[in-house]
Amino acid sequence: MNSSNKASISSVITELVGHLSQLPGIGPKTAERLAFHIIKAPESKIVSLSQSLVKAKQQLTFCKTCFIVTENDPCSICSNEFRDHKILCVVHDSIDAYAIENTNTYSGSYHILNGSISPMNGIGPNELTISQLLMRINNNLPNEIIIATNPTIEGDATSTYIINQIKNDEVKITRLAIGIPIGGDLDYTDNKTLTQAFNSRQPIR
Amino acid sequence: MNSSNKASISSVITELVGHLSQLPGIGPKTAERLAFHIIKAPESKIVSLSQSLVKAKQQLTFCKTCFIVTENDPCSICSNEFRDHKILCVVHDSIDAYAIENTNTYSGSYHILNGSISPMNGIGPNELTISQLLMRINNNLPNEIIIATNPTIEGDATSTYIINQIKNDEVKITRLAIGIPIGGDLDYTDNKTLTQAFNSRQPIR
Repeated sequence: MNSSNKASISSVITELVGHLSQLPGIGPKTAERLAFHIIKAPESKIVSLSQSLVKAKQQLTFCKTCFIVTENDPCSICSNEFRDHKILCVVHDSIDAYAIENTNTYSGSYHILNGSISPMNGIGPNELTISQLLMRINNNLPNEIIIATNPTIEGDATSTYIINQIKNDEVKITRLAIGIPIGGDLDYTDNKTLTQAFNSRQPIR
Repeated sequence: MNSSNKASISSVITELVGHLSQLPGIGPKTAERLAFHIIKAPESKIVSLSQSLVKAKQQLTFCKTCFIVTENDPCSICSNEFRDHKILCVVHDSIDAYAIENTNTYSGSYHILNGSISPMNGIGPNELTISQLLMRINNNLPNEIIIATNPTIEGDATSTYIINQIKNDEVKITRLAIGIPIGGDLDYTDNKTLTQAFNSRQPIR
């Protein structure tokens, strides 16, 4: 009976919903809600969102030292003389460095691996910036390397590989603490995290 | 010590994150994740997303009969001779009509109110397309009007107002059933819904 479908009402909306639902974490329902929000928003706002998307894609590049996504090479961190370039924090992606920057807790520099070792996805050490990291370590001889890979199987594999590659014994290597997140619930914490939290318990007094 | 902040790494990313986080349901964290996804996506995809945003804003208009958002006036529903134009389904917004279309269960036409009566937000009946609805009812004399406003205080107020305005006693008026949603949990269902579900219980045999 019903010969109509969504596409037949508005191909423009269907197209927009299609594009939006390709974004990560945006399901078809959210895409639809976003599309209808966009339709109602002032044109100037939509135009500037649209321009900002293309601008980000076109102007952004990588810092050739630490590989962070930025419009400046060297990036504002590598070129900042007030930061401690003798400390390197090794992370998977630029977004991780941005997350650490948001904490305002770290004033060293970064090294972005551009992913994690994942044989299942055909990503080996050569697909990452590990050789560049080792070169930086040899040239610059940092005081500390903070391994801030994700505490996942792939992150741990990447971390182990990197640590084995660092032949220089003088370099201090640390990794981020594993434990119960603030606001977390002991009851809902998985066994492995709880075990680590127990084993890494800190003296109070 | 740390004089850096997010903006100092990349103003282009900060701008994009700012734009994205103005969208509904997109918090700063999701906006950041979206931005970094966009940076990695092929330029052609970003350009077509960007064009699709502006195109949606520029090409979309309202159907002057039912007020649905569409690029065609009359819309493909109002101009579809296979649909039953003697049944009107009254909804708040175009997105509600799209949701009903997705069910493939309804083959009548729609009337989009463009919101709900909400004195707190300064929206009275005159801000909605209620007078146009009453005109449609008088001119077209439908067999049935399905009130599909949201089961909320504002939706109910809108529905009550509309029902009181329909002076023609011959028109059948129905509303969508209230009850426990499929997959829902009786235990988590609020009292009012449960009461309604009880009172509207259906015979099985």
